[in-house]
Amino acid sequence: MFASAQLPQTLDKSDFKELEPQLRDDLLKAQLEMIERKDFSVIILVDGLDGAGKGESIARLYGWMEARHLVCNAYSEPSKEARQHPPFWRYWRDLPAKGETAVVFGSWYQPILRARIYGELDDDGFQREMMKVRRFEEMLANEGVLILKFWYVLPADVQKQRLKAIEKKKAARHVLADWSTLKNRDKASQTGEEIILATSKGYAPWFVIPSEDAEYRDAALAQTITRSINLKLADGTAKQVAAPPVVGGLEKRSALDAIDLSASLDKKTYEKRRDDLQEMLSEISDTKKFAKRGMVLVFQGNDAAGKGGTIRRVIRPLDPRIYQVHPISAPSDEEKARPYLWRFWRRLPRRGHVAIFDRSWYERVLVERVEGYASHEEWLRAYDEINSFEAELVGHGYLVCKFWLSISAEEQLRRFKAREETSYKQHKITDDDWRNRLKWDQYAIAAGDMIDRTSTRDAPWKLVSSEDKRHARVEVLQTICDRLKEEL
Amino acid sequence: MFASAQLPQTLDKSDFKELEPQLRDDLLKAQLEMIERKDFSVIILVDGLDGAGKGESIARLYGWMEARHLVCNAYSEPSKEARQHPPFWRYWRDLPAKGETAVVFGSWYQPILRARIYGELDDDGFQREMMKVRRFEEMLANEGVLILKFWYVLPADVQKQRLKAIEKKKAARHVLADWSTLKNRDKASQTGEEIILATSKGYAPWFVIPSEDAEYRDAALAQTITRSINLKLADGTAKQVAAPPVVGGLEKRSALDAIDLSASLDKKTYEKRRDDLQEMLSEISDTKKFAKRGMVLVFQGNDAAGKGGTIRRVIRPLDPRIYQVHPISAPSDEEKARPYLWRFWRRLPRRGHVAIFDRSWYERVLVERVEGYASHEEWLRAYDEINSFEAELVGHGYLVCKFWLSISAEEQLRRFKAREETSYKQHKITDDDWRNRLKWDQYAIAAGDMIDRTSTRDAPWKLVSSEDKRHARVEVLQTICDRLKEEL
Repeated sequence: MFASAQLPQTLDKSDFKELEPQLRDDLLKAQLEMIERKDFSVIILVDGLDGAGKGESIARLYGWMEARHLVCNAYSEPSKEARQHPPFWRYWRDLPAKGETAVVFGSWYQPILRARIYGELDDDGFQREMMKVRRFEEMLANEGVLILKFWYVLPADVQKQRLKAIEKKKAARHVLADWSTLKNRDKASQTGEEIILATSKGYAPWFVIPSEDAEYRDAALAQTITRSINLKLADGTAKQVAAPPVVGGLEKRSALDAIDLSASLDKKTYEKRRDDLQEMLSEISDTKKFAKRGMVLVFQGNDAAGKGGTIRRVIRPLDPRIYQVHPISAPSDEEKARPYLWRFWRRLPRRGHVAIFDRSWYERVLVERVEGYASHEEWLRAYDEINSFEAELVGHGYLVCKFWLSISAEEQLRRFKAREETSYKQHKITDDDWRNRLKWDQYAIAAGDMIDRTSTRDAPWKLVSSEDKRHARVEVLQTICDRLKEEL
Repeated sequence: MFASAQLPQTLDKSDFKELEPQLRDDLLKAQLEMIERKDFSVIILVDGLDGAGKGESIARLYGWMEARHLVCNAYSEPSKEARQHPPFWRYWRDLPAKGETAVVFGSWYQPILRARIYGELDDDGFQREMMKVRRFEEMLANEGVLILKFWYVLPADVQKQRLKAIEKKKAARHVLADWSTLKNRDKASQTGEEIILATSKGYAPWFVIPSEDAEYRDAALAQTITRSINLKLADGTAKQVAAPPVVGGLEKRSALDAIDLSASLDKKTYEKRRDDLQEMLSEISDTKKFAKRGMVLVFQGNDAAGKGGTIRRVIRPLDPRIYQVHPISAPSDEEKARPYLWRFWRRLPRRGHVAIFDRSWYERVLVERVEGYASHEEWLRAYDEINSFEAELVGHGYLVCKFWLSISAEEQLRRFKAREETSYKQHKITDDDWRNRLKWDQYAIAAGDMIDRTSTRDAPWKLVSSEDKRHARVEVLQTICDRLKEEL
């Protein structure tokens, strides 16, 4: 999850200087309005990897906000007094009053994170703790607390440097959690992902903050807080707050930006690799092991990215009796009359079969979000619903592979024009395509959020450049074969 | 839980005959409006003990409703086709369209119930399954499905007779679940309670239907469905539906009605038993074992039932350093500014200490419900929040004992008058008391619902007749001593 957070996200110092007065103004205005109205309180949870500058970041926040209505609660080992009471007692004790804001360091997630990293908490125990946390946060949200949770991340090499620097300065060592060593980094990242997956709810969302660049980090933090308070001020009963990361004044690099669009294959190499991979896929899909499993393939991407052509190369080696391609367009009347995911449940494959979705349940957070067919509340909760849905598929034994086929805006234009000029391709280009193209940026944001929030360990997104179709086809075939070999 | 469901609830055949036309009319009208509007679908889940007449009850429902928009889905062992798909596939497949109603027998709860009764599902596994069910139902509710879940219950002896009768008729045997034997009755009841506790949510509540009397059973079913559909029709976005059982046209006996108000003690017996019990309490509360635990006592009851006097007898044998009495009245400004339970969290005892609440968090579902200080949505979700809260207390090692002190309306009147006439007691009677008394019936319903929905295995309500104060005091002391001896 949150692939985009691994990309370097930066903000020039000079740009930041320019942006800062507005950021401060907006944030302070929102806070003052909230203090005035006394309708709700705000809890800002600060978590994530050490070395990311969490303290520094909050110090800047203090400078920007009205500090008399801001308290900071830092928890480490429970005091003797706290140990005499149930675990959540100390967090309850410190809940801010309406109009007030509390910044929480070392929150209720820390003991869980710590125990999980040290292997003291098995899967069931972890899920139990997650349930308790969800109940706690849901109750707070129901009672008018705006809960904003920030997870600070850093690329591995940057974190390494920072931790070394901190360890040199004796005085600073105390700011490190005891589990926050480089040795535990992978485990910590993985646990963080599990936690975010289990507890990022509409009523208490996680925001992942890329923290390599201090200016970007703090601007993102401030902007997210401002937007969330304003949303809550606008609709006091809204329990859903804006899940997606900052946009607008801040340019965020999405996971899509990291796709190398220059990748290509010459015809000969392509044909050789394609044939080899198709042969392999044919063999694996004919095994007894595969007959006990099943596969769900999802294809999404820019219009004209070549989903259809890629799918044709995937199905060629498969026995026609075991697969079905499901092109997804507007829902039928029957489908509209039922819960959203019903249309996909009815198309699930039997064991040992393959269902290929040309567009899918992800349309809810793409076209339905951008075009307003789904309400804000609907598409926000869809991330969590989709993750649950796919977890059920994985739990049943299916392999779930999701592909995002990416092309540049220029390449899309070329393909659209080519379609218009070629008679047998004209049916493939519609007014809708041109209309959607005008919203390229909005679709890119939606796709970026989608990948950040639904690329899970068990059902990851594979981002594929389709600027060169041969490259895309081979990449997709390769990914499927790799997953099959790994899992069977 | 649902103590009231164990009481014989009956409706005379002649009363039923009189009531029936109205019941049918109301139900059909609600259904037709729903068919016309096509805003949501209804799922009626039918579960509970065998022999309660679930089939018979639904058959009558069919006679009352427009059957062309009613389907019945009965699930037993999954078919070969169903086994090829994830477990929830068959339930998804059969989801009703908007405007339609589905009656579900052998729902997603059956495999869990069965595995639990046969000991194939440990606590963690059970909680995992409960989480899946909650996610599923929450998603359906979010997508516009009205989910009504009915749990049919019978007193043990009645069920025994019925099962014997069914077993004699070979043809009818197939209607019994394989685990539904008398031998498993206790386990089944207990599991049912666990399930109801874990999955009775505002968006998908359980209704317990006392089924000894077929007329009462079916009238209660029809009335609950009608009321829930009408609520949803009135506010399409309402995800909370009416949790409390039927009232109004149907008279329901609440758990309070089963209290024997005639119990009394003569002075000599009282003094002897009181002294013995206080001695015992003094000893136990001074042990090392107790020092590691702690106790939370909750006193609720009718006005003038004698809570204060009873509490004084409980604290007398305790070391003043280890207990504190918390009289709960209107919240302070500081408390109003924070989530509801904050005021109780801050009053929790340390380990080895005793907190005595003279009125408590239950005021939310009593006075706040009746007087409208809490919204419908707030007091409905409070049952679940309170159960979670008390589970945290129990999990920390506290003993949680809750007492409802009950007196008759006549006795209350006598005591009110006595208070007015005795100068040193005048401060104990206010206009509020007289006002509340006018709402005696509403308070009784609220108290009955409270006991039904929050009397859990770990934190049960003890209903005590306080018509005779001596009896009440001894009964309370005895209960506390018994619990302490049992748990330490």
